[in-house]
Amino acid sequence: MRERLIRALMEAQGFVSGARMSADVGISRGAVWKHIQALRQGGFAIDASPRKGYRLLEIPDALNAAVVTPLLAGGFGKPYHYRRSLKSTNDTAKTLAHAGAPEGTVVVAEEQTGGRGRRGRFWYSPPGGLWFSLILHPKIPPAEVNSLSLVLSLAVAEGLERLTGARPSLKWPNDVLLRGRKVGGILTEISSEADQVHFVVAGIGVNVNFTSFPPDIEPTATSLQAQTGGAVCRPRLFSAVLVSLEDNYRLWCEKGFPPFRKAYKERIDLLGKRVSAANPTGTLNGLAWDIDGDGRLVLRLPNGEETRLSTGEVTVREG
Amino acid sequence: MRERLIRALMEAQGFVSGARMSADVGISRGAVWKHIQALRQGGFAIDASPRKGYRLLEIPDALNAAVVTPLLAGGFGKPYHYRRSLKSTNDTAKTLAHAGAPEGTVVVAEEQTGGRGRRGRFWYSPPGGLWFSLILHPKIPPAEVNSLSLVLSLAVAEGLERLTGARPSLKWPNDVLLRGRKVGGILTEISSEADQVHFVVAGIGVNVNFTSFPPDIEPTATSLQAQTGGAVCRPRLFSAVLVSLEDNYRLWCEKGFPPFRKAYKERIDLLGKRVSAANPTGTLNGLAWDIDGDGRLVLRLPNGEETRLSTGEVTVREG
Repeated sequence: MRERLIRALMEAQGFVSGARMSADVGISRGAVWKHIQALRQGGFAIDASPRKGYRLLEIPDALNAAVVTPLLAGGFGKPYHYRRSLKSTNDTAKTLAHAGAPEGTVVVAEEQTGGRGRRGRFWYSPPGGLWFSLILHPKIPPAEVNSLSLVLSLAVAEGLERLTGARPSLKWPNDVLLRGRKVGGILTEISSEADQVHFVVAGIGVNVNFTSFPPDIEPTATSLQAQTGGAVCRPRLFSAVLVSLEDNYRLWCEKGFPPFRKAYKERIDLLGKRVSAANPTGTLNGLAWDIDGDGRLVLRLPNGEETRLSTGEVTVREG
Repeated sequence: MRERLIRALMEAQGFVSGARMSADVGISRGAVWKHIQALRQGGFAIDASPRKGYRLLEIPDALNAAVVTPLLAGGFGKPYHYRRSLKSTNDTAKTLAHAGAPEGTVVVAEEQTGGRGRRGRFWYSPPGGLWFSLILHPKIPPAEVNSLSLVLSLAVAEGLERLTGARPSLKWPNDVLLRGRKVGGILTEISSEADQVHFVVAGIGVNVNFTSFPPDIEPTATSLQAQTGGAVCRPRLFSAVLVSLEDNYRLWCEKGFPPFRKAYKERIDLLGKRVSAANPTGTLNGLAWDIDGDGRLVLRLPNGEETRLSTGEVTVREG
């Protein structure tokens, strides 16, 4: 109910009469008034004029359920678990998933005290960012999770672009960059049988409304605020990103990576460049040639052979 | 220390003098006597003669640490977690692995009250069987766990054969059969990032010393006791299976599936037969043609095309 009221107010971009909201949503004007009061208590600034009706002035920059859930249009974000502080939203989401949490469940925290990136690396997660995990139940073998991870990172880039107008690029396999600096990332974890995934937890981090970083990541990190010059409304960003994630996920479940291949390739600034790719098994130098239909990086080696990588740290070699 | 005494007694197959055991193991004859007393308290029947020395009469058919750990030759089974009854050894092992349990950790229970097979199916696990889970930390992407699962099932078959002389066959991908009936199986579960496994839990079940089954599995199940006519010493079986598992795992980590391909193919009675393969995505009919270098089943379809399956329920079609 509140979702429909908020959407009506957001779409109006001005006053909407109580009579029209009452008719559109199908509740009495008194009930509209009560919901408006509840939204105000949740932090929404809503102007009320006896003649003109209601007008949305401001969405609070908070991520609690009272603020975010009225903004959610699709199925992702239901159920919605919010905490002020968590060690790691992925750890909490994995516990929930083991206990049977359904697809679309979201865990979000204002800060993570032990946020992790890929390979157990620390992920700086202070208040003011967007740190959340999404539970998915695709019926796939574990090998296919790699391309899902790319498709979700593309969704994050697309969601950021839709809300801010900035055009993020991607660093294969799944970092999100703005002007060459890391603004977000994905840590995809799975629990699986040898041939069938039980669940996927996609942990997503976006640097939003803060501008200082620890010294070791300062040269390579950035935030939306640092790039756009102002604070970004995190609940609206969150809502936009969840919509992108859901759209991409549904299409990926049906058709896999191929429908995303072109858009993904356009977001990475890598193909045609000489690169070093470091894997747990060693480092390969070569020409970044293509992203294949499974999302693997096709590398042309100096001896003319081709190899396909499904993971690795890729750096562009100068000169 | 007790491991070396037990091995000396097992290898002797008769009396060993206290003096020789003392010299071999490098402890005093008094210390040998104390360890023998402790082993007896653990259930080992050991004959002691003032003139001839010690002779191992019987290893108790129990799976507690006091009985099994002295029989373990390699690194698998350390640490060793024994419980009378567990819901599922895999669930307990996963909890331990999440908390950092090292490679080789084993969880074993006399019975499982909620034992699971693949795809969440019930696995009948009464007292008298061998129900355990093994924690592994291979540095691999999740796609490679499929062939590990085959190699571990081969190890179980080889361990059973070494101890009992019976020759088990395998049902692709990883059931263990005796005379065409299921005597054991593996449920391999992983926790992973998109491209890097955190840990593998291999749950292994063998029907040993019981002969009655629930009606729904009775026509297709069997046990070692039912096939060999007598009770099998479970701790010795366990020790033999763990040695096979460790040998196969080490070689697989180094060289992958190819060194096992021939032995695996010889254990399955499938190639050259007309089969139906049921997958989550549908059912395919064709000729079971080969097991490839990744452990996938190569199927020749009626239209002459080939397809490779990494999972599925395969049934041989009569006629």
